[in-house]
Amino acid sequence: MWFESDNGGPVAPAVMAALAAANDGPAPAYGADALTAGALARIRAAFEAPAAAVHLVATGTAANALALGCLCPPWGTVYCHAAAHIATDECGAPEFYTGGAKLRLLEGPSGKFSPGDLACAIAATAPAGVHNTQPAAVSITNPTEAGAVWTPGEVAAIASVAHQAGLRLHMDGARLANALARLGCSPADLTWRAGVDVLTLGGTKNGLMGAEAVILFDPGLGQEFALRRKRGGHLPSKMRYLAAQFDAWLADGLWLRLAAHANAMAQDLARGLAAAGHPPLHPVDANMVFAAMPRRVHRALRAAGARYLFWPGDPPEAGAEDEPLMCRLVCSPATRREEVAAFLDALSRAGDARA
Amino acid sequence: MWFESDNGGPVAPAVMAALAAANDGPAPAYGADALTAGALARIRAAFEAPAAAVHLVATGTAANALALGCLCPPWGTVYCHAAAHIATDECGAPEFYTGGAKLRLLEGPSGKFSPGDLACAIAATAPAGVHNTQPAAVSITNPTEAGAVWTPGEVAAIASVAHQAGLRLHMDGARLANALARLGCSPADLTWRAGVDVLTLGGTKNGLMGAEAVILFDPGLGQEFALRRKRGGHLPSKMRYLAAQFDAWLADGLWLRLAAHANAMAQDLARGLAAAGHPPLHPVDANMVFAAMPRRVHRALRAAGARYLFWPGDPPEAGAEDEPLMCRLVCSPATRREEVAAFLDALSRAGDARA
Amino acid sequence: MWFESDNGGPVAPAVMAALAAANDGPAPAYGADALTAGALARIRAAFEAPAAAVHLVATGTAANALALGCLCPPWGTVYCHAAAHIATDECGAPEFYTGGAKLRLLEGPSGKFSPGDLACAIAATAPAGVHNTQPAAVSITNPTEAGAVWTPGEVAAIASVAHQAGLRLHMDGARLANALARLGCSPADLTWRAGVDVLTLGGTKNGLMGAEAVILFDPGLGQEFALRRKRGGHLPSKMRYLAAQFDAWLADGLWLRLAAHANAMAQDLARGLAAAGHPPLHPVDANMVFAAMPRRVHRALRAAGARYLFWPGDPPEAGAEDEPLMCRLVCSPATRREEVAAFLDALSRAGDARA
Amino acid sequence: MWFESDNGGPVAPAVMAALAAANDGPAPAYGADALTAGALARIRAAFEAPAAAVHLVATGTAANALALGCLCPPWGTVYCHAAAHIATDECGAPEFYTGGAKLRLLEGPSGKFSPGDLACAIAATAPAGVHNTQPAAVSITNPTEAGAVWTPGEVAAIASVAHQAGLRLHMDGARLANALARLGCSPADLTWRAGVDVLTLGGTKNGLMGAEAVILFDPGLGQEFALRRKRGGHLPSKMRYLAAQFDAWLADGLWLRLAAHANAMAQDLARGLAAAGHPPLHPVDANMVFAAMPRRVHRALRAAGARYLFWPGDPPEAGAEDEPLMCRLVCSPATRREEVAAFLDALSRAGDARA
Repeated sequence: MWFESDNGGPVAPAVMAALAAANDGPAPAYGADALTAGALARIRAAFEAPAAAVHLVATGTAANALALGCLCPPWGTVYCHAAAHIATDECGAPEFYTGGAKLRLLEGPSGKFSPGDLACAIAATAPAGVHNTQPAAVSITNPTEAGAVWTPGEVAAIASVAHQAGLRLHMDGARLANALARLGCSPADLTWRAGVDVLTLGGTKNGLMGAEAVILFDPGLGQEFALRRKRGGHLPSKMRYLAAQFDAWLADGLWLRLAAHANAMAQDLARGLAAAGHPPLHPVDANMVFAAMPRRVHRALRAAGARYLFWPGDPPEAGAEDEPLMCRLVCSPATRREEVAAFLDALSRAGDARA
Repeated sequence: MWFESDNGGPVAPAVMAALAAANDGPAPAYGADALTAGALARIRAAFEAPAAAVHLVATGTAANALALGCLCPPWGTVYCHAAAHIATDECGAPEFYTGGAKLRLLEGPSGKFSPGDLACAIAATAPAGVHNTQPAAVSITNPTEAGAVWTPGEVAAIASVAHQAGLRLHMDGARLANALARLGCSPADLTWRAGVDVLTLGGTKNGLMGAEAVILFDPGLGQEFALRRKRGGHLPSKMRYLAAQFDAWLADGLWLRLAAHANAMAQDLARGLAAAGHPPLHPVDANMVFAAMPRRVHRALRAAGARYLFWPGDPPEAGAEDEPLMCRLVCSPATRREEVAAFLDALSRAGDARA
Repeated sequence: MWFESDNGGPVAPAVMAALAAANDGPAPAYGADALTAGALARIRAAFEAPAAAVHLVATGTAANALALGCLCPPWGTVYCHAAAHIATDECGAPEFYTGGAKLRLLEGPSGKFSPGDLACAIAATAPAGVHNTQPAAVSITNPTEAGAVWTPGEVAAIASVAHQAGLRLHMDGARLANALARLGCSPADLTWRAGVDVLTLGGTKNGLMGAEAVILFDPGLGQEFALRRKRGGHLPSKMRYLAAQFDAWLADGLWLRLAAHANAMAQDLARGLAAAGHPPLHPVDANMVFAAMPRRVHRALRAAGARYLFWPGDPPEAGAEDEPLMCRLVCSPATRREEVAAFLDALSRAGDARA
Repeated sequence: MWFESDNGGPVAPAVMAALAAANDGPAPAYGADALTAGALARIRAAFEAPAAAVHLVATGTAANALALGCLCPPWGTVYCHAAAHIATDECGAPEFYTGGAKLRLLEGPSGKFSPGDLACAIAATAPAGVHNTQPAAVSITNPTEAGAVWTPGEVAAIASVAHQAGLRLHMDGARLANALARLGCSPADLTWRAGVDVLTLGGTKNGLMGAEAVILFDPGLGQEFALRRKRGGHLPSKMRYLAAQFDAWLADGLWLRLAAHANAMAQDLARGLAAAGHPPLHPVDANMVFAAMPRRVHRALRAAGARYLFWPGDPPEAGAEDEPLMCRLVCSPATRREEVAAFLDALSRAGDARA
């Protein structure tokens, strides 16, 4: 009953097999090997972006921060949601990699903000000569940190505001496969065709060991990214082992199947929670469920072996038994139906216990 | 016949097996798992440093630059050899992670500099009030980029100069196992007992997939390192896969056996080259051999399938057939005796061909 | 009728005379001269802080950003009001000088925030291990950008929350003299006795040519500040000309007399505006008045030669004649009673014109 | 007998008068005033560069570092002399403002390096893909820190190498007026016509209170410079007082007359020293003289009241009386003939004393 994070899931068997297969004798370092060339080509093909610059790194924070570094000068502003991973969970990596840019935080339900609010925020911080930082980029997360999915139309509306103001659009797709599996649209439709300029394509939360791709749809940004990556210590010498992960993941639609499974498990959880009187607090578009349950229910669930995080942080130890406490449940490609069933069973018993 | 770099070698079978074994169900992310705890404990034990702060990262550049960031303020100076990896091969990562510190380059044969030269350089750049950057750290590479090994006594002499001037000593041990295998001394003797304050312990060049450890013998530096690591995007969520590599590597002395094999292969190469009239240009203390051979010999070797780098860079395409061109040959744990034999055979034929 | 900014005022005659007097033959550079020693001593005496480290710089942005650099690491958070000069008017200088720290913006009337809101904000961003930036410092502006004054008691309440959480308190005193003139308390009471750790003491807006002092009440921060100042290019070689300004300004209470005059002029303006039906939008504690007046009144005032800024920015050119538009009026030591009278007279005529 | 530095000299009387004249009522802040517009126009006219972007700052370190920030990315290399002010006397300001670029140090007599050495250095550090920092800019100082002047032809030879390799050329003209006074050529001939892309035009060492101009001959760099200046805290609100200095300085050739006087005083010193058996160690092209004299002569000179610096730093207190010790003597516009005469008289007596 593991719902702490998709970060905690194991590597998909096909990906482990690909790593083993890649481990065959020497190969040129730093990405000059054939496996890397193949994986990058496969990414470009999946996104119908034959000219895009694509670079692999090992962590999502690196992918996001390096991407923003290419989009925003030190004296620039990045507009993003107040709950964005880049704002709350990267210990200032965007500030570090941009050389000290500012994040301007927007509000809105379930991790999204409206095009109108974005336009207002840009206007409110528009340059007063050189006295304030200059609007430079917008970043959205898809699915959001609250588990909601931006549709191509919603992305396009944000992109339109951004581009009209001369800003570029970054998408943090740490869980992009979950959004694609949900929407059934093409990767291109959800990204560059909707106006995304640079994409962080996450693999680690969806069955990889530790690999993310940054896709710069404007290939003119590629060389700067490459220099920033090396300078940031993010150019692995044995690149082939990152490439092998992506290669297996994209082959034959595995990435979408893995994500679809995680999404389905989240749906099952959400249904069960709702049935037990704990309807989800955010749209369950992807692989995450947010709910509020009484303290005594949490206690029972945890006693039964369920692992998940309180949200947004741990509550005080003591409190009323009926106090509702929020939590986040995340499914991964490795979440088993039995785990979900066991969780819902424990939930049901926790309810009975009270009655 | 692959001698391009130890970076190009595959992962040691025992390490691949450990990765497969680690891939068992979910685990807490970001290093809170049991495997990581075990690997860190094993590193501390190997170095007889039970209190040391130990952190894993995926690349050597990250390890070095993060370490220097903890040792040197933005307005500081790091003293290192002009050929040091941190000076020539990291695209300014040390400057990036320190916030703009200066590297003061020292000269000396085979990648080493003398304690006297270090003392003079520190004195020459000693603070004139606030007008120049402030001496802060010394960094040495062991084995050096030229394949020479610093002995414990030599390290201690450098450390003594550094400490007396109030500077701390970093050791880039990207190939430390090769030095230990050569010297037969204990890891502690070559590092903290000799005065090293922070060590980059490299695994990637010696059979790992992509894992380096930074050992801060002063545990007071550990929390700052952890914050810098996260902020740099170098905290992998699935840390267990880095930990598994180190765990297998240190178990049962594997790391030293792998390094000893690479060293032995280099010895064989060096002997053969010397016998053919191409004595090594630097001490062959570890797993690297530098030699100068006529252009026509290089051509013959490459035609026979040998892969290695000219050094320090590619020569002009055209030139006299007898022009001596320098090259670097690197052995890895995966270098086979047959490769060495085939190389020396091709070398012998190249010589015969001329006669 | 100049009310654009106190930045636009001329230099006080006594200060110009001091500059002329300082211009006598050669003197040691970089602050090693007697005039600088004297000015620093005078600042320490005025603040009853004989041990404080005091440094002069030429601009307020430099003073604030260098101060924050000493209080907040690159991975830290500074808590400040959303309207703070450091947040809105320094083009990211705090981010630049801290190496990429985050500003966490607080709300509250007239540029102040409550101790309770501060405590909540700190709690809400408290470290989740290494994943978010670490609370490091609080910055308040006194008087605020809205012209309100923090009393010693209010400062102490903020300081108490900050210190209890392990954060240090910076005060941007770009107009501190105006606050002191208003309150009649001692400089020490409003700063270090109330818990301020580092003060930016502004002179430029109050009759100096271009000189600000940073007072680090913890002298242990002084050497780092000095290095940061030089590295930032803010160590003037001919320091005596900054020192001369401060020396004349502090002599004989000139700074407070200049500020008291500016405050009095603002009071006169505010009274006249209120009498004309335009009561101030913020407390008129210092030398600034904020008001809303119909577009047609603004037009008449400007036609009569009044110069001042719309606030927070220029409104659209066209609009209803009765649309209320906000503006800011700032008085300086050089503001003349005749200017205020002329302004109020024009205001009166603008009202009559309508009737 | 003040020869410590031209930094220690007072402000020229005409410049003080201009400051007094500028102190007339309020004026728009941040350079939007008429005086600033006039001064910038005068600088453009003096350099026959009507389209150049020109910005004023208060210190030479700021001018140099901001200029380099516009010419060199964080992952770039700046080529300069090992004795350059940017390398030795700015506490890493260039590294700070570039975001961590590298300075590659060149050697050569009297602060100059040859075009050939520059070409070799660029070739030796040419990009190996992304592994090393990328050649970006060259910086020369005219006159050099050793007092030698680069002629237009010499500058053009350096510029040619730089431009051919795709690098831009910065000139640190902290004492440019001294070079111009020496050469008698036009400011344009010594700068942009010879290939200089960005010039630091120093005024502080030549009679100003604290004002330097950065002239970007490519006006496309102007807006970035303006943002960097503000972000660095180097945009003075009361800009008119910097402008007034430049305005008076450039009016009627004052800057060149001041420099010519300082140069002449240095010539007199040099002649006297040579006659006394202490020939200058570097060309005395501008206002600085370097010489070596026995310790006992230094003692006698200092006892007589001469003030100047040992070079490059203070020697040990004790030593042989005849030990030659190097020193630097700098003349400023305020150096009086009587001071030079008194110095040479003391020198003569020091020599007699021995005999």
